[in-house]
Amino acid sequence: MTDEAARDPAALIATMGQHARAAATVLATAPTHAKAAALNAAATAMRDDRAQILAANRDDVARAQAAQLSGAMLDRLTLTPARIEGVATGLEAVAALPDPVGTIIDRSERPNGLRLSRVRVPLGVVGIIYESRPNVTADAGALAMMAGNAVILRGGSEASASNRALHACLLRGLEAAGLPAAAIQLVPTTDRAAVGAMLAAAGLIDIIIPRGGKGLVERVQADARVPVLAHLDGINHLYVDRAADPEMARAIALNAKLRRTGVCGATETLLIDRAFANPRPILSALIDGGCALRGTPDVCALEPRAVPATAEDWGTEYLDAILSVALVDGVEDAMRHIAAHGSHHTDAIVTEDAATAERFLAEVDSAIVAWNASTQFADGGEFGLGAEIGIATGRLHARGPVALEGLTTYKWQVRGNGQTRA
Amino acid sequence: MTDEAARDPAALIATMGQHARAAATVLATAPTHAKAAALNAAATAMRDDRAQILAANRDDVARAQAAQLSGAMLDRLTLTPARIEGVATGLEAVAALPDPVGTIIDRSERPNGLRLSRVRVPLGVVGIIYESRPNVTADAGALAMMAGNAVILRGGSEASASNRALHACLLRGLEAAGLPAAAIQLVPTTDRAAVGAMLAAAGLIDIIIPRGGKGLVERVQADARVPVLAHLDGINHLYVDRAADPEMARAIALNAKLRRTGVCGATETLLIDRAFANPRPILSALIDGGCALRGTPDVCALEPRAVPATAEDWGTEYLDAILSVALVDGVEDAMRHIAAHGSHHTDAIVTEDAATAERFLAEVDSAIVAWNASTQFADGGEFGLGAEIGIATGRLHARGPVALEGLTTYKWQVRGNGQTRA
Repeated sequence: MTDEAARDPAALIATMGQHARAAATVLATAPTHAKAAALNAAATAMRDDRAQILAANRDDVARAQAAQLSGAMLDRLTLTPARIEGVATGLEAVAALPDPVGTIIDRSERPNGLRLSRVRVPLGVVGIIYESRPNVTADAGALAMMAGNAVILRGGSEASASNRALHACLLRGLEAAGLPAAAIQLVPTTDRAAVGAMLAAAGLIDIIIPRGGKGLVERVQADARVPVLAHLDGINHLYVDRAADPEMARAIALNAKLRRTGVCGATETLLIDRAFANPRPILSALIDGGCALRGTPDVCALEPRAVPATAEDWGTEYLDAILSVALVDGVEDAMRHIAAHGSHHTDAIVTEDAATAERFLAEVDSAIVAWNASTQFADGGEFGLGAEIGIATGRLHARGPVALEGLTTYKWQVRGNGQTRA
Repeated sequence: MTDEAARDPAALIATMGQHARAAATVLATAPTHAKAAALNAAATAMRDDRAQILAANRDDVARAQAAQLSGAMLDRLTLTPARIEGVATGLEAVAALPDPVGTIIDRSERPNGLRLSRVRVPLGVVGIIYESRPNVTADAGALAMMAGNAVILRGGSEASASNRALHACLLRGLEAAGLPAAAIQLVPTTDRAAVGAMLAAAGLIDIIIPRGGKGLVERVQADARVPVLAHLDGINHLYVDRAADPEMARAIALNAKLRRTGVCGATETLLIDRAFANPRPILSALIDGGCALRGTPDVCALEPRAVPATAEDWGTEYLDAILSVALVDGVEDAMRHIAAHGSHHTDAIVTEDAATAERFLAEVDSAIVAWNASTQFADGGEFGLGAEIGIATGRLHARGPVALEGLTTYKWQVRGNGQTRA
C-alpha cells in the first residue's frame, strides 16, 4: 500500500480491486489441487504460528476490554488454541470439498449443430465485510478462494491484529501453492471509509457478502452499488399441526428454540393448531427449559407463566431464550401468520399428515421449509455442503445455505463448425 | 386505482405490490395447464381484438409523430397485423414451454435420515420497466407469469394506448384460466415518479428487469433498491486466429457484424491474429457489404478504405454498420484486448486449433463464449430456451439469455421423522 492509497480509501480499494481482478483471472483456471494445497498449507501455517496468532489476539482483546466492549463481543473476538485448531481443520475441510468450477450444469445440441454447455465459473472478485469474529478471515476467505474467486476481506477494527495474523497464514498457503498473493487480500486500514469504497466499487468487486449483525447487513444493503448476497433475520416459525405426534412436537420445539438460541436457525415463534390435543406439555417443557414465553391471550390462559405478547413480538428475532407463541386455526392460518411476520429464512411443520405437510412445504415462501425436523438444521454443514458463507434470505442467485456453488456463476460455451445465423 | 393512488405514485405502487404478492401466492402453486391456458386465451383475444389494438397503436403513433420522435423509435412503437400475429404466436410458444416450477434441482439424504431437495419456485413479484416497444407488454409479461411470478409492467408513455390494449387481452386470458387479474398488472399512469417508486419498492417487488436502451438500464441500476437483472452493452468481439479457416472466418465475420447490426449479439470489434494468412478478403468483404471499418494503423495499411480508430472505438457498442478492427499477436493478446474493452456479453473465436479454442472458451470471462460460430446466435430462442426476457451481462443469478428458469429461484425442502440437532 502506498501512502497515497492509505490516505484515499477509494484509491486503495481501486488498487486492491485491480490486483484482485488479475488474481481472479489466474484462479478461474487454477487446478483444484493448487487451491486445495494453498488451504492445507495455510492450515499448517496456522498451527505453526499458533503462539503468534494468540499473542495478536491478546492485543485485540486487551484493546477491546479497555474500550469496554460487551461480553458477547469479547467472546466472538477471542481466539483460543481450540478455536485456532477449529479454523485450521475448517480450512482442510474446505480443501477437501468437490470443486464446482468447470462442472457442466447442462448441455444441448441445436438442430443447426451448435453444441451448447453451461459451465460453472467463479463469480470473480468477492468482497467480504465482517465484524468482530477473526475466524471469518480464514473461513470466508478460504471458501471464496476455493470457488475460484479473488477475495477482498474487510474485518472489524477490533480484530485487526488477529485478522492480520490469520491472513499472513493464508498468504503463506497461497505462496506455497504457487497462487497469487492477491487471491486473498485483507484491507490494510480500519478506516470506515474503506467499507464505503468497497460498496461503491462496481466493476471492481463483483459481489459483496456482509457477515455480521443486522445493522451491518442493512447498511451494506442500503449503500451498496455492488450486488449483495445478504443474510438478514431468521424470524423462524415452528408450526405444530393437529396431526402432530405430541412427543415429537415437544422434542422438536425444545430443540428448535433452545439448542442454541443465538443462531439464525433458532425458532422465534411457535404456532400451535387449536385442534392439537395437548399443547400444555410443550409450553411447560419450554419454560422448564429456561425459555420465556410471550403468548396470545389463549396461550397465557393455557400456561400462566407466559406473558402477553405485543404486536412487535411477532416480528422480532430474539436470538435469546424467548419465544412468541400463538394458537392458530390449522395450517392455512399458520401459513398466513408466517407470510405476514416471517423473514423467508426457515420454517417448519410437525405433523403426521403428509398432505398437510406437503402443502406447507409447497406454499411457505422461505429459503428452507422443513417437515418433522428442527429449524436448527438450517446450516450448510448439516445440509452436506461442507461449509457455508451464510444463509441467503434474498431470492436471487442463491437461497438458503451458501457454500462453494453459491460462490460461482456460469458461462455458456458454444461450439460450432462455422455456423452463421440466418 | 383510487384517486389518491393516482396522485401518489408510491401509494399506487404499494397497492399494486400488495395485489401482486397475493397473486404471486396463487401463481406459485398454479398448475402448468392453467398458466398455459391463460396465455393461449390471451393469444386468441389478441387476434380477436386486432382492430382495436391497431387503432390504439395508431393513436400512439400519431402522438409520437406529433412529438417528432425519431424514425427508429416510431418503428419500435408501430404495430402491424403481422407484428400482432407474432406477439400472439409468441404467447402460444411460451405456453408450450416446459414449466420450471416444481423441478427438483438436486436431492440428498443425510446420515441422520433427513431428506433434502432443492425445488424450483418462482421469484415472486417481477417488475418490468421498458420503453417504446408495446410487444414487451405481452412477451415479458407472459414469460414472467409462466414462470409463476406476478408481474408489474411499466411501459413507455409513448406506447400507453397500445400497452393498455395488449394488457386487456392478457387480462382476458387470466380470467379465462381462472387466475387472478393481479398476476399481470400494468402501471396505469405514465408519471415518471412511478418508475422511481418501483425502484424503491424493496419488499414489494422482488426483482426489476429493465428492457430498453443503455440510458434506461443505467438509471435503473443506479437508483434501484430492489435487485436488478440487467442487460448492458454487447461490446462483442470476434477473434480470427492464425489457425482459422479463411472462408469460415470471412463468412462468420460478415454474419456476426452485418446480419443485423442493431442487436446486442452483433460483433463490434474484429481482432485478427497477425499470423493469420490473409486478412484482406475479410476486410474487403465487410466494406463491400456496407460496413465502415475503424482500424489500427496496420489495419488501415491493409485496407485503405478503413479509417483510423480512436481510443473510444474499442469501448463502443455501435449497433450500426461500423466495426473496429485490430491486429493482435495471437490468442493471448486477443484475450487481453477483450478483458480490457469487452462487456462480458458474447465473444467468439474462429480457429481450427482445438487447444487454442478451448483456452479461449475457458479464459474469456463473458456470458457467452463461442468457437467457430457467429456472435449473432446470442439469443434465447437460438439457445433452445423458447423465448428470452433479455441477455444478462451481470454475474449473479442468471447469465446470458434469461428465460423461464432465470425467472425462478429455489427453496430447500427438508423432510424428517422427528430429527433434532445435537
